[in-house]
Amino acid sequence: MRASLVQPVANLGLGLGQDNPPQFLVDAHKEALDLVECNQYGPTNGLPRFRETLSDIYSPLYRRKLDPETEISVHSGGTEAILSTITAFVESGDEVIVLEPAFDLYELHTRYVGGTVIAVPLHPPSQASTCINRADDWTLDLHELENAFSPRTKMLILNTPHNPLGKVFTVHELLAIGNLCVERGVIILSDEVYEHLYYTDAFARIGTLSHNIARHTVTIGSIGKAFNATGWRVGYAIGDKELIKHVWRAHIILSYTTAGPAQIAAATGLELAIANGFWEQNRAEMRKKIDSLCEVFRELALPYVEPSGAHYVFVHMGKIRIPEDYKFPTSISGKSRDWAICWFLIHEIGVATIPASASFSNANAHVAKDYLRFVACKSQEELELAKSRLRGLKAFL
Amino acid sequence: MRASLVQPVANLGLGLGQDNPPQFLVDAHKEALDLVECNQYGPTNGLPRFRETLSDIYSPLYRRKLDPETEISVHSGGTEAILSTITAFVESGDEVIVLEPAFDLYELHTRYVGGTVIAVPLHPPSQASTCINRADDWTLDLHELENAFSPRTKMLILNTPHNPLGKVFTVHELLAIGNLCVERGVIILSDEVYEHLYYTDAFARIGTLSHNIARHTVTIGSIGKAFNATGWRVGYAIGDKELIKHVWRAHIILSYTTAGPAQIAAATGLELAIANGFWEQNRAEMRKKIDSLCEVFRELALPYVEPSGAHYVFVHMGKIRIPEDYKFPTSISGKSRDWAICWFLIHEIGVATIPASASFSNANAHVAKDYLRFVACKSQEELELAKSRLRGLKAFL
Repeated sequence: MRASLVQPVANLGLGLGQDNPPQFLVDAHKEALDLVECNQYGPTNGLPRFRETLSDIYSPLYRRKLDPETEISVHSGGTEAILSTITAFVESGDEVIVLEPAFDLYELHTRYVGGTVIAVPLHPPSQASTCINRADDWTLDLHELENAFSPRTKMLILNTPHNPLGKVFTVHELLAIGNLCVERGVIILSDEVYEHLYYTDAFARIGTLSHNIARHTVTIGSIGKAFNATGWRVGYAIGDKELIKHVWRAHIILSYTTAGPAQIAAATGLELAIANGFWEQNRAEMRKKIDSLCEVFRELALPYVEPSGAHYVFVHMGKIRIPEDYKFPTSISGKSRDWAICWFLIHEIGVATIPASASFSNANAHVAKDYLRFVACKSQEELELAKSRLRGLKAFL
Repeated sequence: MRASLVQPVANLGLGLGQDNPPQFLVDAHKEALDLVECNQYGPTNGLPRFRETLSDIYSPLYRRKLDPETEISVHSGGTEAILSTITAFVESGDEVIVLEPAFDLYELHTRYVGGTVIAVPLHPPSQASTCINRADDWTLDLHELENAFSPRTKMLILNTPHNPLGKVFTVHELLAIGNLCVERGVIILSDEVYEHLYYTDAFARIGTLSHNIARHTVTIGSIGKAFNATGWRVGYAIGDKELIKHVWRAHIILSYTTAGPAQIAAATGLELAIANGFWEQNRAEMRKKIDSLCEVFRELALPYVEPSGAHYVFVHMGKIRIPEDYKFPTSISGKSRDWAICWFLIHEIGVATIPASASFSNANAHVAKDYLRFVACKSQEELELAKSRLRGLKAFL
């Protein structure tokens, strides 16, 4: 059997939206473009207006007044905020603990500054390959985590709500991780860019759980992820001033300053989003999209990981039977099974996804071999196209 | 005599404008915000529309078709474009040759990737401390440059039009530098962010001078600098595909993608600027501002460096007599004389500038000790305020 190509391919691969950001945010951006001071270099730690808004919004969550001058730094996207934080604390030869599966940039960034990633897996529940399971049931073995620390460990990277699993870490889990890091003097980078997308009762932030943990934690937020404006490149870091001062210095080297008009738009947008119920509405819509997408996996009886947060769905493809005579290109041979399934889905079914092994290191890649990551943050049209295409999988079960 | 503080201080320190970018550029940005595809992650090497425009504009200057897909990468500001280029080619232990005075970020970036800057001075003409002189008369000793190369030299950073001197390198000079780099297998990073601000007959680009030099050169441009929109953070790198592929990879790590709406605005803006004569008009206005500012230095008979490009004026302050009993703060003591003059000007005259030694390494700091850098890219009002304040220096000559 030779590869065909079903067109158009429904793209549930990259996590970028297909709708515009909310109009109130776009309007705020347009207005900001008329302000001279936005259009020129602003302070390297961000425009005061934006930092003050962030302080107003996050201080109640942190149950202390966050100093907008010293405890918040503005970055040119979440990516740059993460790299600035890694740059601030990780040097050549240092180790960074990452919980797998994990966003692939953590490793790229760690290697960029000369560090090494030590991967600790999140373990799937025992029935994950046969039954629908909850992301929150993928768990960390604390003993395994403890053993991953070494004298060279400088940082642990946490991601909650989690990409790609959709796990929202509980207070209990966060306290265990946080206290371990405090004990070992390790910085926690908490990537919380999906903070508004949780489908649990509450979302716990590790930097708020104790004074000691707060002193070890830098939390990352993203305007692009929050507002479905991934093309705007505005992020921020929040934390103790003794940590943020180093993050800020790294930002100066990496980016110097961040786009001014988008910062002002973000400040206005964050205020309006609270006032007009955007977060709740956005969360409800995303949950509906996830549920709509998962409908097809239930139809196909493909076990998937039900997310408690973010906008990804991890699906177990162990049941898919690819014809034995199917011809894969040489670029696929030697790669794990998820790559082959991913290729097959693009060409024979017409749906693009991301192979799960992109989120795992070699040591843990066996967990990934049957999983694909689907994104749900797409237009309803694209989701429906994808679903109807995915029904074509029935022939290969 | 104790420090007073003349208020408001006229700020001729940082190189950020006080006027808005041209309205046609602002309008293009507003329009782009209505396009969904701009507001989401674009391709990591930049939006095709912007790269194609850059190719259309630069191909005639390079006398060959620049492939928009492989020979241009878009960056989140000139700063990030420079760091991406340094990241692409310089590793720990490598050496980078920089011509001094130099933009201080070159050294910060080189050190960030573990490299070392080898500084080669531009020599002032013999009468520089007593007479007005031309930036173009600050010259490179080619023998000195040759001696700066070592087996560890990976890159030479060129900046033309030059910050802070305002020198525009001639074809003759560029060929000498370029051929030396080709001979030694060294990459040239040509920072040409002031490319539209030259007051000579023509502006020569090193990457266009020969096939061999082109194969060794990455050229950096900046939308912020070109359009007086330094707060927008859009830059780009142009060069042979064998070089740009590495620059692009570094960009993915440093920034992932660049703001979409600003890229589309830049594409439209670049096209309109050619059609409506913006570059010529902007150049004429900046030249007028420089001339207007320099008027006061002529009045005071303070020797200055007449720029052939960019928007800085280097002024020799050797004649300023600071009262012997003047009290400087401890932060100034131990620093070179330009820091003391800078402090004195801020507090007693009410004009902020940048001390020249910020642009020199220790070995060449003796050249800097009497110089301050003034910027001319300010509103006419600010320039007039600065000039009237500077007349107060008469009492200290």
